[in-house]
Formats: sequence, C-alpha cells, structure tokens
Amino acid sequence: MSLNLLILGSGSALPTLNSNQTAQVLETESEVYLIDCGEATQIELRRHKVRVQRLNHIFISHLHGDHFFGLVGLLSTMHLLGRQKTVHIHGPQGLEEIVRIQFRNAGSHLSYEMKFHTITKGDELIHEDKYVKVTSLELNHRIQTFGFLFEEQPKPRKLIPEALAKYKIPNYARKSITQGEDYVDPDGKTVKNALLSTDPEPSRRYAYCSDTAFYEPLIQRIENVDLLYHESTFLDADIERAKATYHSTAKDAARVANLAGVGKLLLGHFSNRYKNREGFLQEARPIFLESHIAEEGERYSF
Amino acid sequence: MSLNLLILGSGSALPTLNSNQTAQVLETESEVYLIDCGEATQIELRRHKVRVQRLNHIFISHLHGDHFFGLVGLLSTMHLLGRQKTVHIHGPQGLEEIVRIQFRNAGSHLSYEMKFHTITKGDELIHEDKYVKVTSLELNHRIQTFGFLFEEQPKPRKLIPEALAKYKIPNYARKSITQGEDYVDPDGKTVKNALLSTDPEPSRRYAYCSDTAFYEPLIQRIENVDLLYHESTFLDADIERAKATYHSTAKDAARVANLAGVGKLLLGHFSNRYKNREGFLQEARPIFLESHIAEEGERYSF
Repeated sequence: MSLNLLILGSGSALPTLNSNQTAQVLETESEVYLIDCGEATQIELRRHKVRVQRLNHIFISHLHGDHFFGLVGLLSTMHLLGRQKTVHIHGPQGLEEIVRIQFRNAGSHLSYEMKFHTITKGDELIHEDKYVKVTSLELNHRIQTFGFLFEEQPKPRKLIPEALAKYKIPNYARKSITQGEDYVDPDGKTVKNALLSTDPEPSRRYAYCSDTAFYEPLIQRIENVDLLYHESTFLDADIERAKATYHSTAKDAARVANLAGVGKLLLGHFSNRYKNREGFLQEARPIFLESHIAEEGERYSF
Repeated sequence: MSLNLLILGSGSALPTLNSNQTAQVLETESEVYLIDCGEATQIELRRHKVRVQRLNHIFISHLHGDHFFGLVGLLSTMHLLGRQKTVHIHGPQGLEEIVRIQFRNAGSHLSYEMKFHTITKGDELIHEDKYVKVTSLELNHRIQTFGFLFEEQPKPRKLIPEALAKYKIPNYARKSITQGEDYVDPDGKTVKNALLSTDPEPSRRYAYCSDTAFYEPLIQRIENVDLLYHESTFLDADIERAKATYHSTAKDAARVANLAGVGKLLLGHFSNRYKNREGFLQEARPIFLESHIAEEGERYSF
C-alpha cells in the first residue's frame, strides 16, 4: 500500500482564482493528515472528496496567514457537522489562542474536543500512531516555522509459506515472526527468524518543508526521504527578494533535494508574480532531475 | 445613477462548492462597501472583479464565523498588495482583537492603518460620507448582531434650464439652487427655488438584516426601503429549528418585508439542508410578491 500526498494548494500568500494557499493531505491506508490549512482549504477538501471528519491530526507549520487562515473555518464546519471525536492540532505557540478567541466570541460550545499540541523546537517527535511517526523540522524563516517529517511505522516482515510448513510453525506464532522474533518450539528448539521471513516493505518517509530559506542543517534531517516538498517561492532572478523574505528559489530547493539524496522533489509555494511554472523546473532540474511542480488537485503516490 | 448590490455569498454556515458564506458589496457611483465577509470572500471579489483596494469601509454584522472568517485574509491581501489607505472596519466588540492577534503572531507590520469602529447598539449612525449614511439596526440573534441601513445622501435638485434662462440666473448661483436655496439677485429681488428646480432623484435606501429571528421592532426602522436583504435560513417545515437558533423562515422574512412596505426583498443565508431554493419563493411570495432569491454573483440595481 503506497502513501498519497494530495496537494490542495501550492500558491504562496495571495490566493487567486487559479491558485490556493498552502494545504495538503497525506493519506495512509487508514488515516489522513492535514498539513497546513490556508484560507478555503475546507472547500478544496470537499472538491477532492476528503471528508473533513476523517481528519484527526492537523499540522500547522507557522503563523503566516496563508498557512492557517482556513483552520478556524474547518474546525467550525466539523462542529456544525456534529463531530464527536477529538481533533489534535499541532502547531506553534499562539495558534491555540487565535482559534479559541474566535469560538469564544461566537459563543460556540464545540461538539468535540480540540487538543492543541504546541511545537516548541525542531527534531522533536510530535505525533505517533499505528501508522506514522511525525517529527518536527527546524526551518529558517522570518518567524518560528517547522517542517514535518512523516515516517511510516515499520511494516511486518513477510512470512515465507514454504518455511512455515517445513518447520511446522503453529498459527499463533506467526504474528511474532512478522515482528522479527525467532520461533521457539515447545521443546525449546529455536528456528531463526531469517529462515521464516523476509524483510518487510520499506517504510516510506515524507518531508514537508515550507516556508524556509536554504537551510543547511535541514539536509541531514531529511536524508533519503522518498518524497520531499520544499518551497520554491522565487526564481533565481528574484534571489534578493528570496533572501530578504527568508524564502527559497527553485535552485535552493533542488540543492536541498540533491544534497539530501531524496527520491523525488515537489516544488511549491509559488509567488504569483510568475505567469507559469515552467521556469521553476528549468532552474531545478539541472541540479536535481526528479524535480516536479506540486500541482493542485494531484495525488502523488510513493 | 443607481446603486448595485452584488451578492458574493448567500449560503449559511457551511460553505460548499456551490454556495458561499455571507458577503456582499454595495456599489455606489464612487465607493464600494463590503458587508460581511465569510471565508474566501477575497476570492469571490476577484471572481466578480471588485478590486480589494477599492474597499475603504467594511461592515461586519456579528461574530459568527460565516460572517467574518474571510476578513483577516482580505486585510492581509490588502497589505501584500501594498495598500496605503486606511481601512475602516465597523463591527461588534471583539472583532478588533481577533484580527490583531493574528497579525501580531505573524509578525506583520501592515502597510496601511486599520481603524476599528466598535458598534455597541442599534439605531446609531456608524458611518457617513459624501455618498451614504449607514445606521446600525438591532437584530435578534443568539449573540449581539447588527443589521445595516444604507441611505444615499440627498441628491441635488434638478435645474430647469428654461427657468434659468428666463430669470437670467448667473452660473455661480446654480449650485446653491441645486441645494434648495432661492435665488436673490443683486437688487435684492428673490426668485423662489421651486420656480428654478424640481425635486431631486429620490435617495435610495438599502437594509441588510442577517442573522435574526423575526423581530417586530425592526419593521419601523426599515420602513419603505427600496431593497431589503433579510435572512431566511429555513423553510416553514423547520420552524422549530429556526426558533431555537434565532433564525428566520422565508415566511418571517416576507412578513417583515410586507409590514415594512419595502420595494423588493432578497432572501438569503439559506441552510444547505435544502436541495434547491424554489421552496423559499413558494413560501415568501404569497405574503410578499416581490420576494427574490439572493443569487451569488448577481448584481441587483435599485
């Protein structure tokens, strides 16, 4: 089973008729995780048939509005639809007050519980469940900003049916073998795990890095991830603007991807000063061939 | 020159792919006024080619999110586009803090000044300029909620060219005649204004009433307005729900329109439990014939 990354918005600050503010959904077999939530994200969730009540964990990178202005509306809709289940919101200091002050003024008593988990630093395990571990990544932006590293939990080892038959392994022992244990029979005789199972499917890893200037310490944190989303707000011609605003160019993003040896790079958070996005690929691909535009509405499997 | 009311959103709390949260724009010859600002209003402004920098006055009726969740994003966009001119925001207590806390957390220093004008009661002149006077209207909702009465300033009386010639009225005196004054010639002889001019175009009046239960004291405040927007969230079958939530049915809205003797009624703020809006007209028109659906994207001239 692969993971899907659904891009809901890959524009930067100014939403237009053709480009949404940042938001994306990581879909595992059973859970969906929302990453950032620009204005009107709830509409894009509807458009792409992601049911809002399936979201249990929301990750907000930082408090520039194009990354969270849609959050309170989404949370409000969950309430109006009668949600019961707790929603966990992971984000920087300040987010909780911004959300709560709005519900307080509205006199709303939510039908469900919001649990805020304040992220205070990078390289911290901020969430773990049956499917994934999520670690914060320190980025380099004008205000405190975090990326997120999603890692699938280790998958079960694959049983070798012929070996199970040969060694007469009883059914009850199979689960422990998929977890890497040897088999010990009632007489105390051991069958090594390696004889009974093969390595599991590799666990996939996804790194989300927006917004940030080129940031060298990031590279080792995201080494060899299968998929990297890295912002590239600007083209090289506007490198001074990129530096002044702590954003990246397409080349910066490609350099990070190249140095970290990732599988595939998605470029996003495009300034809408550029009429089309061809220039981003032209600048990124000579540095990192597997550079792609994060297209809104696309699902990227990995 | 007529006034235009552009409906950007006439849905209620839940935005969908076909229905926006409440927002509308009143367009005079020179000024445009934004009334309520649900999520993604800035996108609808773009869609209908209303330039955000033309907005100088924004009126927010109350602090339920479907009436203001788009405000901070709109104000942020004005900043990103380099606005210099002050924006005046008229709304209930609490709105200023909700907006400012978000810009504070973003570390934003706006390129322009936001001036908040807190509305504390109904029947209060909350804004006046060359074109209009705006008065707050007390409504009857779950939290403090205001409607808005927009009244065009008196227009100039119309000069009678033949009379000006006959009485040899000099050019310099014409403006004062359009303002209703008599003409006094250098010899002290008076020509009555009524001989020189006719009554001006009537000043148009627009009343915006959302959200509210049927509220009898409202009727005399909006008597004879040319256009009334009155919420009708529910149909008669759901009257208990309307009562419980302090909303109106289509019949309630039509009764208000009928008793106030308005020119035309626009129904809006529809619950999206109803598949189509035909039922609202069926219930309203027997009570008030000039009942219409507030269609998103339509401009209503009056």
